Amino acid sequence: PLGLCWALGAAAAAAAAPNILLLLMDDMGWGDLGAFGEPSRETPNLDQMAAEGMLFLDFYTANPLCSPSRAALLTGRLPVRNGFYTTNAHARNAYTPQDVVGGIPDSELLLPELLKKAGYVNKIIGKWHLGHRPQFHPLRHGFDEWFGSPNCHFGPYDNKEHPNIPLYRDWEMIGRYYEDFKIDLKTGEANLTQIYLQEALDFITKQQDSEQPFFLYWAIDATHAPVYASKQFLGTSQRGLYGDAVREIDDSIGKILRHLEQLGISENTFVFFTSDNGAALISAPTQGGSNGPFLCGKETTFEGGMREPAIAWWPGHIPAGGVTHQLGNVMDLFSTSLSLAGLQPPGDRQIDGLDLSPVLLQGKLIDRPIFYYRGNELMAVRAGPYKAHYWTWSNSWEEYGKGIDFCPGQSVPGVTTHTQEEHTHLPLLFHLGRDPGEKFPLSFASEEYQRAVERISGIVQQHRDTLVPGQPQLNVCDKAVMNWSPPGCQKLGKCLKAPESDPQKCSWPH
Amino acid sequence: PLGLCWALGAAAAAAAAPNILLLLMDDMGWGDLGAFGEPSRETPNLDQMAAEGMLFLDFYTANPLCSPSRAALLTGRLPVRNGFYTTNAHARNAYTPQDVVGGIPDSELLLPELLKKAGYVNKIIGKWHLGHRPQFHPLRHGFDEWFGSPNCHFGPYDNKEHPNIPLYRDWEMIGRYYEDFKIDLKTGEANLTQIYLQEALDFITKQQDSEQPFFLYWAIDATHAPVYASKQFLGTSQRGLYGDAVREIDDSIGKILRHLEQLGISENTFVFFTSDNGAALISAPTQGGSNGPFLCGKETTFEGGMREPAIAWWPGHIPAGGVTHQLGNVMDLFSTSLSLAGLQPPGDRQIDGLDLSPVLLQGKLIDRPIFYYRGNELMAVRAGPYKAHYWTWSNSWEEYGKGIDFCPGQSVPGVTTHTQEEHTHLPLLFHLGRDPGEKFPLSFASEEYQRAVERISGIVQQHRDTLVPGQPQLNVCDKAVMNWSPPGCQKLGKCLKAPESDPQKCSWPH
Repeated sequence: PLGLCWALGAAAAAAAAPNILLLLMDDMGWGDLGAFGEPSRETPNLDQMAAEGMLFLDFYTANPLCSPSRAALLTGRLPVRNGFYTTNAHARNAYTPQDVVGGIPDSELLLPELLKKAGYVNKIIGKWHLGHRPQFHPLRHGFDEWFGSPNCHFGPYDNKEHPNIPLYRDWEMIGRYYEDFKIDLKTGEANLTQIYLQEALDFITKQQDSEQPFFLYWAIDATHAPVYASKQFLGTSQRGLYGDAVREIDDSIGKILRHLEQLGISENTFVFFTSDNGAALISAPTQGGSNGPFLCGKETTFEGGMREPAIAWWPGHIPAGGVTHQLGNVMDLFSTSLSLAGLQPPGDRQIDGLDLSPVLLQGKLIDRPIFYYRGNELMAVRAGPYKAHYWTWSNSWEEYGKGIDFCPGQSVPGVTTHTQEEHTHLPLLFHLGRDPGEKFPLSFASEEYQRAVERISGIVQQHRDTLVPGQPQLNVCDKAVMNWSPPGCQKLGKCLKAPESDPQKCSWPH
Repeated sequence: PLGLCWALGAAAAAAAAPNILLLLMDDMGWGDLGAFGEPSRETPNLDQMAAEGMLFLDFYTANPLCSPSRAALLTGRLPVRNGFYTTNAHARNAYTPQDVVGGIPDSELLLPELLKKAGYVNKIIGKWHLGHRPQFHPLRHGFDEWFGSPNCHFGPYDNKEHPNIPLYRDWEMIGRYYEDFKIDLKTGEANLTQIYLQEALDFITKQQDSEQPFFLYWAIDATHAPVYASKQFLGTSQRGLYGDAVREIDDSIGKILRHLEQLGISENTFVFFTSDNGAALISAPTQGGSNGPFLCGKETTFEGGMREPAIAWWPGHIPAGGVTHQLGNVMDLFSTSLSLAGLQPPGDRQIDGLDLSPVLLQGKLIDRPIFYYRGNELMAVRAGPYKAHYWTWSNSWEEYGKGIDFCPGQSVPGVTTHTQEEHTHLPLLFHLGRDPGEKFPLSFASEEYQRAVERISGIVQQHRDTLVPGQPQLNVCDKAVMNWSPPGCQKLGKCLKAPESDPQKCSWPH
């Protein structure tokens, strides 16, 4: 009876300030879940999450690459506004390797900073990717706790030219990948997902006893190359190592959701599952996922690069079995979370995120465009079912010649181009309902073309007229800023000697 | 109480001889259903059918073209055995246009002929496609009733060089497409699916009162170009006209299943939904469907040409919500139907179909290969997750140059070739779990390759050693055999004058 009273009390409090749990995948594609049509059907827990919640079929990232996507999610703003882009060359994707000098500017307001005003305790588990230098530390931007790494788990490095990436607990590093946190590149074995799972379960358990709601940002990375899975999942998937990683994540998410239910707080916890960008087809088939019927993958502004799997789950609030065509964006998680916490978004800046709570709770549809950027170039815009490409590019002939292919097995003449093609005056137009694979551009002469482009042109004009780009953060690289001596390295004897500072323009070939 | 007793009686009888309802789609692709990942999610009835039944993820046709596929379904035998192929040129798909001289040989035993022995009343609604000359008439091959047409609804023709295709009721024609049964090629409007639906509902109602079980073969064709839908469905899909047709079919199947439930015979009726071949990407986007993540479409032996959507439904017998990876084939519908009817397959000939009832009723998995033929050439073989291509071909450069493209937007070097490439001595091998899109051939040098090819070679050897090809039926064409004067034309004043006989080799460019 005590449990029951407590549960009722928790449910009543839910409307005021639910816990918020964002499950952000890394390089997972739209086509990787059974609920989205993956032919092996190996995600029973995520499929059940969808059946108990709401499936988003038209959900997007703000950028086809990890760092800008994550910066957009946490700021509610396009990378071109929050500074997570480069101007070193035209239309280039940029991120935060460990020699990048920039990171999230102090002027940006992050979701956890704002949630603090409503009493939230905020934790990030996994990949931060918004800058690794001290001023960019997540605990300086609103998070109360951190377990994870600032950069991608690339490596192993040699520690002389290149330090291995550190893992942090809160303010200090506790070890490095490949040294203290093993990833066996030969077998793909690593138990990191199990560690991240345990961190999540422990945090949720701890917070359940507190009076404060929590925000947990679970940003795991097993599906990012080098892909890994724990021993018990290795070899269990029909899809190879990538599938093993997906199965372990699926299993972990099932455990997290059941944990919420067992603690009696599922009706008081808003959960959203999505991914940072499309599947990295360049790493397929063993290290990359699937974008289902969509064109190309990560790094591109075709649907395969930016359409994401997405599921909202909040028993008792979001009706079970819902499927929505609402155009959504990772930036909406910022605005929606604020709204659920009873907070207003900052009024002193442009926010691109949309409050999706009317979609989630009342099944409404809100008309809004989707902007597809590469660097500071607006490559494409979607409005309703129409997508207009102002620029097309997969990658350069030079990179392609090296075997780097963002669209393996796919080739749409004049669309998946290896030179940057401008279509500003006569955009390439696709109807994503009839042609989700962006294979059949509409005839320029058709009335349908005229009507749709006229509408999108107005949207673009307004967007451009009011756009104030932020200071680009991803232009300068310097080996001196790498993770040589993260805080805490002394205790571990893991401090390395940094070279002298030698700032350079970062090279962004894509 | 009377209704209940009757229902119990029916359920008890079910084990002996259930009604059999085959819902065969035309050119519908694996990726066209919400349950298989179609991004618009417009098939609520089929998705519900899947949720209440068993979804087959690895179900195949016996040929990537309509007539041979249908001949295989009804005979349980590969087209190379039942004669539905051509030897006019190497590795060509052939079908039954109205100038073809051949059709289903009398020596073949069709499913309805055999079901008669168990007292079934058999009806075909829709497209026959096993030959249109008198000796090939479906009522001469085991069906008791027919409403539909012998050939595709191509047209309109001019009646002088080319008669329009007739529709039959039983033995006699009752009109012709475009004349008496309108299809508006401009708007896509035609009410044929509604007519076929009503025929099905009426037949089911009638049979429910009888003592005899029924076999209904509902072979509709709204998703075959020229695609059509009834007025009430036109413009209702996000996917354009093709989607309108799918929505109307989905709605119709919902009505049929509800009708079975309302009559109280759903637990006494085995229903299977599938399609005759992959989506005709050549007709996309407005007149063709989707093969999801698979390569190419109709006419090819890549997965997109031969992997089919498939759902089994039999409440009270097949557990709800099942998903199977059993390798299935349309020919299995022959063997499975016989088994459910308590009959043995003919013992005097090779039957390729498998009895799937252990899969359906006990969740078993049966190891068996899939053969991919084009004409009488064995192009590829699947065993387990591995698919070996012995020949690759999409279509000729000449046809491709005319704009005929079976793989629009797709191009896998050395795989989707425009010349016929032989790989007999070193087959191209794909792992369909890791690489469902057939984009990454395994390395010839790998141990995995050696092991898999060795196993498949054994299967191929055995298959070839025991193969007795039937007499090819699709070699000769003659304008004199077209539908000039079908039986019943006199009553309607619809007899046309046939030209003199002038038999020619049929031309099969693909």
